[in-house]
This record gives sequence, structure tokens and C-alpha cells, in this order.
Amino acid sequence: MVYSAVQLIRMQGVSGTGLREVVARAQAPRGSLQHYFPGGKEQLVGEAISWAGDFAASQVGRFLQASPRRTPSALFEAMADQWRREFDRIGFGRGCPIVATVADVAADDRIRETVRQAFEHWQEPVAAALIEMGVPPRRAPALALLMLSTLEGAIVFARVRRDNGPLDTAVAELGPLLDSAVAGRLQGNQP
Amino acid sequence: MVYSAVQLIRMQGVSGTGLREVVARAQAPRGSLQHYFPGGKEQLVGEAISWAGDFAASQVGRFLQASPRRTPSALFEAMADQWRREFDRIGFGRGCPIVATVADVAADDRIRETVRQAFEHWQEPVAAALIEMGVPPRRAPALALLMLSTLEGAIVFARVRRDNGPLDTAVAELGPLLDSAVAGRLQGNQP
Repeated sequence: MVYSAVQLIRMQGVSGTGLREVVARAQAPRGSLQHYFPGGKEQLVGEAISWAGDFAASQVGRFLQASPRRTPSALFEAMADQWRREFDRIGFGRGCPIVATVADVAADDRIRETVRQAFEHWQEPVAAALIEMGVPPRRAPALALLMLSTLEGAIVFARVRRDNGPLDTAVAELGPLLDSAVAGRLQGNQP
Repeated sequence: MVYSAVQLIRMQGVSGTGLREVVARAQAPRGSLQHYFPGGKEQLVGEAISWAGDFAASQVGRFLQASPRRTPSALFEAMADQWRREFDRIGFGRGCPIVATVADVAADDRIRETVRQAFEHWQEPVAAALIEMGVPPRRAPALALLMLSTLEGAIVFARVRRDNGPLDTAVAELGPLLDSAVAGRLQGNQP
């Protein structure tokens, strides 16, 4: 049911997603929602966002285990690739649930706090990976934040244009900047 | 009424914004919606998005007229500054209407086409400004797209965190990359 909620939020936003629709999509019995989510829609949305944050964080770990090329640009490309592959496979109908949630319920303090935690839960392994790759620890959180910001914006514009161009551009343009932050690589444009 | 629709979409998204609320906020008479927007909500949302694209494009022109420091990083900082000032002044309740619209009605083809046009209408003057500042014409559209992507993502995360940190980081980290693309400045990390 949480997974169904994530997918519906990614398509329609929080306001556009009804609880009945979530139950129907999950093929769950009617009463199960009250049973598992006594806190109603707020609880379900909160759990959906937490699930999405866990998923994004776990993908960073998977990349680190799988990739032979352990550079900041390769990590960023892997993050973008996941979206390019999904857009190629199922079209541009589903975006990031974090963005969808912020876009229409930013005023709800409890949901926003859950989103903030999910976002940090995603940023931390990215920053840790950058440090492991040689980015100075004082700079890693900022670059991780930049990676996430650019990725999220590129996802939005890829959906607007219905092509992966914005993701390709983000990878091509940001990659060299990210790699130039690795300590000892002084040819970059950052001190 | 279009302006009221923009503000409500920025706060609540498209699905969360009711036509009655728009009319009430605009202090317009009940019947005026049918009169001015016979196409209903779709037409109103379309005009709101077009208005937002025009506004964003006009801000680029204002920067070019007003700023003594005509560099890509200064332009990007001016674009981010507009958001930092707004967040400082009225809080983090209102985001970008383009993101809000994509997040919950990306499946609606006609609205998506309006969003695409608004986005291009915004990207074009940014790319033109970069060329005027000395960025090679073949690279300017990509850097303009990167600027818009990073800005949009940073706006989302600033709202998530309720602080301007993500915008500060975007300006600090992306600025040097943008300036290094100016022709004749070969110290950058891009060929």
C-alpha cells in the first residue's frame, strides 16, 4: 500500500491522490487502510516519503558496490541513469515523490518534516561517497546538495520536455566540476 | 485572476487549487470565471503558467539592464537572489509554479505543452544573455538549462529545509563553472 501511494504521488501529487485509489491500486481490502494507517492520509504520505528516501539512499550504496569507476561524475551519472532508464521504459508520467510532495503540501509541517528527513537520508550517503572518492569532507555536503538539486531540476524539465536532454546536460556539464573537487586534482576551477 | 491562480498553484499545486478559491482570492465576482475563462480550470492554469514564464523571462532582462557585473555567475546569483529575497520576506510557502504544475498534472498533454513553452520562453533569454557575456553559442543552451535545473532543485530543497542554504550552495558551487565557460577564460575545467 505504501508502494502504491508512492507511485500515485509520483504521478498526481499528494492532493491529486485519493486514499480509495491507493487501496484499489494496492488491491487491498477496503478496511485495511484504517487498520494499517490509523493516521489516515498524512501517515500514508509520510511512510511513502520515508520509503522513497530509503530507496534513493540504497541506490547510492548499490552504485558503490557495483561500479568499477568510482568517481563523483560516475556516481552522478548513475543517479541520472536510473531516471533515464525509467523514463525510457515507462515514459515521463512519474517524477520524484519528494518534489511532488513539496510542491503541494509544503505548508503541512509534519509532512514537511518527514520530507526533510528523507532528503537528508538521501544526501548523507551521497556526501559520504564523495568523501570516500577523495572530495574534502568540508566540501562534500555542498556538492552532494548540488548534485541532488541539479538532478531534481533536470527530472522536472525532462518531464516537461518529454525527453532525457535535461538529464544528459546535467551529467555532461556537472560531471567535470564534481571530479575537479577530488583532492589532488588541481586542474579544476575550484580552489 | 491569473495572478491569484499563480499564487495558489505555487502554494498548493494544481490539484489542490479550486476555481472558487481563485475567484475569492482575486475578489472577482462569481460569474467572471466563466466569462473570462470559458475553458475552465485548464485555461486558467495555462494562462497562469504562461504568465509565470513571461515573468521569469522579464527578470532576466531586468538583470541585464541593471547589473554592473555582467558575468554568468552574477546572472545566476541574481536569479537565485530573487528567490532568497522572497523566502526571507514571506517564508517558504510558495515555490515555482512550473514545478508545481509538472508535479501533479504532467499527464495532461495540453497543460504540459503550455509548461514546455513557458520553460523555453525562460531558457531562451538566459542562453542569449550567456552568449552576450562571451559563452560560446553552441554551449549556451546547455548551461542555461543547467542553471534552470539547479535553481529549480535548490528552490525545492530550500522549501524542504526552510532555509536558503540550498540556494547559497548552488550559487557558490555553480558560479565558477559558469564563468569558466566564457570564451578566452581557459582556466576552467571545460574544454
